[in-house]
Amino acid sequence: MYKGIGASPGIAVGKVLLFKKEDIVIESGAVDDVEKEQNRFHGALKKTREQIEEIKRRTLAEQQAILDAHLMILEDPELIGGVEGAIRAEKLNAEAALEKVMNMFIAIFESMENGYMKERAADIRDVGERLLMNLLGKELPNLAKLKEPVIIVAHDLTPSDTAQLDRENVLGFVTDIGGRTSHSAIMARTMEIPAVVGLKDITQHVKNGDILVFDGEEGIVLVNPEDALVREYARKREEQLQAKKELRKLINSSTISTDGRKVELGCNIGNPKDAKKADENGAEGIGLYRTEFLYMDRTSLPTEEEQLEAYKAVLEIMGKRPVIIRTLDIGGDKELPYMNLPKEMNPFLGYRAIRICLDRKEIFKTQLRALLRAGIYGNLKIMYPMISSVEEVRAANKILEEAKQELQHEGKDYASNIAVGIMVEIPAAAVISDMLAREVDFFSIGTNDLIQYTTAVDRMNEKIAHLYNPFHPALLRLIKLVIDNGHKAGIWVGMCGEAAGDKRLIPVFLGMGLDELSMGAGSILPARKQIQSLSYEEMKVVADQVLQMDTAEEIEKFVTKLCK
Amino acid sequence: MYKGIGASPGIAVGKVLLFKKEDIVIESGAVDDVEKEQNRFHGALKKTREQIEEIKRRTLAEQQAILDAHLMILEDPELIGGVEGAIRAEKLNAEAALEKVMNMFIAIFESMENGYMKERAADIRDVGERLLMNLLGKELPNLAKLKEPVIIVAHDLTPSDTAQLDRENVLGFVTDIGGRTSHSAIMARTMEIPAVVGLKDITQHVKNGDILVFDGEEGIVLVNPEDALVREYARKREEQLQAKKELRKLINSSTISTDGRKVELGCNIGNPKDAKKADENGAEGIGLYRTEFLYMDRTSLPTEEEQLEAYKAVLEIMGKRPVIIRTLDIGGDKELPYMNLPKEMNPFLGYRAIRICLDRKEIFKTQLRALLRAGIYGNLKIMYPMISSVEEVRAANKILEEAKQELQHEGKDYASNIAVGIMVEIPAAAVISDMLAREVDFFSIGTNDLIQYTTAVDRMNEKIAHLYNPFHPALLRLIKLVIDNGHKAGIWVGMCGEAAGDKRLIPVFLGMGLDELSMGAGSILPARKQIQSLSYEEMKVVADQVLQMDTAEEIEKFVTKLCK
Repeated sequence: MYKGIGASPGIAVGKVLLFKKEDIVIESGAVDDVEKEQNRFHGALKKTREQIEEIKRRTLAEQQAILDAHLMILEDPELIGGVEGAIRAEKLNAEAALEKVMNMFIAIFESMENGYMKERAADIRDVGERLLMNLLGKELPNLAKLKEPVIIVAHDLTPSDTAQLDRENVLGFVTDIGGRTSHSAIMARTMEIPAVVGLKDITQHVKNGDILVFDGEEGIVLVNPEDALVREYARKREEQLQAKKELRKLINSSTISTDGRKVELGCNIGNPKDAKKADENGAEGIGLYRTEFLYMDRTSLPTEEEQLEAYKAVLEIMGKRPVIIRTLDIGGDKELPYMNLPKEMNPFLGYRAIRICLDRKEIFKTQLRALLRAGIYGNLKIMYPMISSVEEVRAANKILEEAKQELQHEGKDYASNIAVGIMVEIPAAAVISDMLAREVDFFSIGTNDLIQYTTAVDRMNEKIAHLYNPFHPALLRLIKLVIDNGHKAGIWVGMCGEAAGDKRLIPVFLGMGLDELSMGAGSILPARKQIQSLSYEEMKVVADQVLQMDTAEEIEKFVTKLCK
Repeated sequence: MYKGIGASPGIAVGKVLLFKKEDIVIESGAVDDVEKEQNRFHGALKKTREQIEEIKRRTLAEQQAILDAHLMILEDPELIGGVEGAIRAEKLNAEAALEKVMNMFIAIFESMENGYMKERAADIRDVGERLLMNLLGKELPNLAKLKEPVIIVAHDLTPSDTAQLDRENVLGFVTDIGGRTSHSAIMARTMEIPAVVGLKDITQHVKNGDILVFDGEEGIVLVNPEDALVREYARKREEQLQAKKELRKLINSSTISTDGRKVELGCNIGNPKDAKKADENGAEGIGLYRTEFLYMDRTSLPTEEEQLEAYKAVLEIMGKRPVIIRTLDIGGDKELPYMNLPKEMNPFLGYRAIRICLDRKEIFKTQLRALLRAGIYGNLKIMYPMISSVEEVRAANKILEEAKQELQHEGKDYASNIAVGIMVEIPAAAVISDMLAREVDFFSIGTNDLIQYTTAVDRMNEKIAHLYNPFHPALLRLIKLVIDNGHKAGIWVGMCGEAAGDKRLIPVFLGMGLDELSMGAGSILPARKQIQSLSYEEMKVVADQVLQMDTAEEIEKFVTKLCK
């Protein structure tokens, strides 16, 4: 029995396929023809770019952003300049120059304390390995086509290995290294492939054909266990698949508690392709349509027409169901090179989202015009992010008004009665939510940022990860306050952010009176099933009890017990 | 008439003394004796260090930190290594190498968007200039001894120029460049020397002996004005001096409103020397004793005995008056090289203050032991910074308990009944202040950080400076909530942080029921005079009115009008 880090839930039972990559030996030595090495390097860059673009085409929509990040590594001027420089100044051949520069980059990222940044070393290694193989004229092995169902055992799976996995035949994978926030782990969850990572030396303990069973939730892996155990795991796996099937039956049912309280279950999406998945998972609306994808991985701002198409595409998929589109939330950890945003000491407390939009009105107005025009194709609602004051809402609405008047003058069709709401994700907004409720048509509580600011904890910072806590009593109080203030003013209150899909908190949120919960596509059906089994009146009592508790630990224990 | 930036308030009327530094011409050229240049450079480093230490000895306590920062620049390994490298690799003479490296450093700081960091370029330039003069064997002109009272006019005053100013004879200074947050401006305020900076080219428009009058609050400078104007300014200056004298009479009076409500006025201090100034300005206690100075500018942690001395020194000055000592608040923007704190993406939302102390208990316990032992010398209270939960208070108190038991075992004297309070500076703490009030003996509201986190605005970030606002209705509501929750639990509630000394907000805080306000020494007497003229009952009504307003702008207008 081996214990690793549960990276993607689900049970896997099957035969081992050991996935090994050959060790690459690099011959270095002074070169004479510098020009030739530069050309070889640039040739490899080009080929690598084409390969990654091809992988990107064949992978799931949700994973394309990761491959986009890989494409960006290939364009990094420090990387390219570094390799060119090493060839020129040190007369290294392209392979040796690349290895040197890549190792430096990897060392920098690995030395970072921040867990998220640390994991990025794996992306650089992935791209670097592919570059090197292309320089050497070799092909990287891949797992795109397998003959039979297997469990992959590898020292590590790079993000591009994972992106290419044969989804038909891969029952799961386990690796020696990696963490829960590595891109490979994130991809496994999206692909619904069970996975355990960080097993240290599992590759040393198994061979091809061994029988492996593991639980991707608990992170426990058994090698060649007794038949009885294999049968038990197989039975559990069957149950899980059965439960999934049962869930599918709820796709078209409403989300209503046992005593008749209706909650709307929305889906969070990042691009039009995600909307299909939302629809397939029974979403009653789009609770958060992030529009950043339109602005990223390009060299200039998207036009009004490009935006119109992207909004319209989702509206048409969702028909009469509401689609809440959040205006640009750039800045913070999301950069746009062509916008020349300043480097900041504390980007999360900086120039971002609505703050940029109110400062650079032309960018904002283009988006608002596209939204107003898209409005005629469905049930669109506009949502402003990072609102901290009444003034900001008024300033944003003023620009919206201007956009309407412009469209009017130009004789363009647009929806004049679009509902306008805000993200409540800054403590100030929660505290004055009674005042803000008079200015808008709805609230959506953004728990990720609200936790972060309320407790002054950067959720990316590993050193204080234990302080980032959705069970913090202050957070739950603020949520209740926002709901009550919204309802008093006669507007509805929803929630996007990870807590909305947390089965331990859903009963509490139901009891507090939330009108809408928006979450990842995979969480919608389980949440519907859960709410259909709960009594609103009982959950009111539960919520009141929880609000009396003074530590996150007590709250977490109480609600965890409740949902078992 | 010239308009600049009011950098230090007060009116100045007097004759101009133009302060010019000679242009330095550096002869570069390849050198043969690299060793010799390295020695010259290190000789200049040493001499510069001695000079700055000498200036530090002769300057006010409050300014020593700035000179300490200069001493740290002299020890910067990148600077020293850079110059050594330039001498070695490029065969530059020491002057040319220094100039090259300094210019690079200055360019880096000047290119920063963050205003505070940008201003630090001036400190590097200051140190660099002194280093260069020492290399050249020349002496920097200084303003330490003047024959008669004058107004200094200069292109720029470096921090070390300002630190040396002859306080007897300098009526004020005006400069072409500089900003409100430059070290020279900060020093001028501490020294109570009126100053206007950022006048662009005032040095081109005046000559020695011209008559200058200016108002350091408004930033307006008049050159050779009519006699009537000179007399008017002289009269205003006289009035200001008179008012200051009147204020001095309040040193020993209590701070009581017209209808008998008593407020305690404390002083914020950073080291034992500051305590004298607090005493001289009529402080009724120390509301915030920052202990970071003990840990900074050294290469290892301070011992228990060193700390004991520093705490005892302040307690003895203050006698029976309360002294609130805040435990270590390091991290964020305050680094300690020898502690190897991680580089963070968002340091203000990171590993700092109590978070570090609860993680590295040995450091915390040493401080708590020193505090417990110091307690027998006066009226000491302990305050924990950056508290965000009940758990943290309990964990800190547990370590305090351990420290007591250790001292007990060792037979050492200590105060067993020290009051323990917390800074309320994180929104979560304000929101659950009813729960926290059950755990502690007092609250002190830290407005600087509370504004920052409540509105998600880094107050150092120029790009969003307009959003950092002490009049934000959410902030004022949280303050009221904390006061009410404290009082319901029977504990007192104070405030440190800049808002506590803001005359526009003092009436509101009085009306809200704050028990204590702690501020810079210079603000205490004006605050006392103000409160002695206010009615508590009337201010209650004012506070209620303010709490109904939904924008910071409206609140600011209302309270500004009120205190005129």
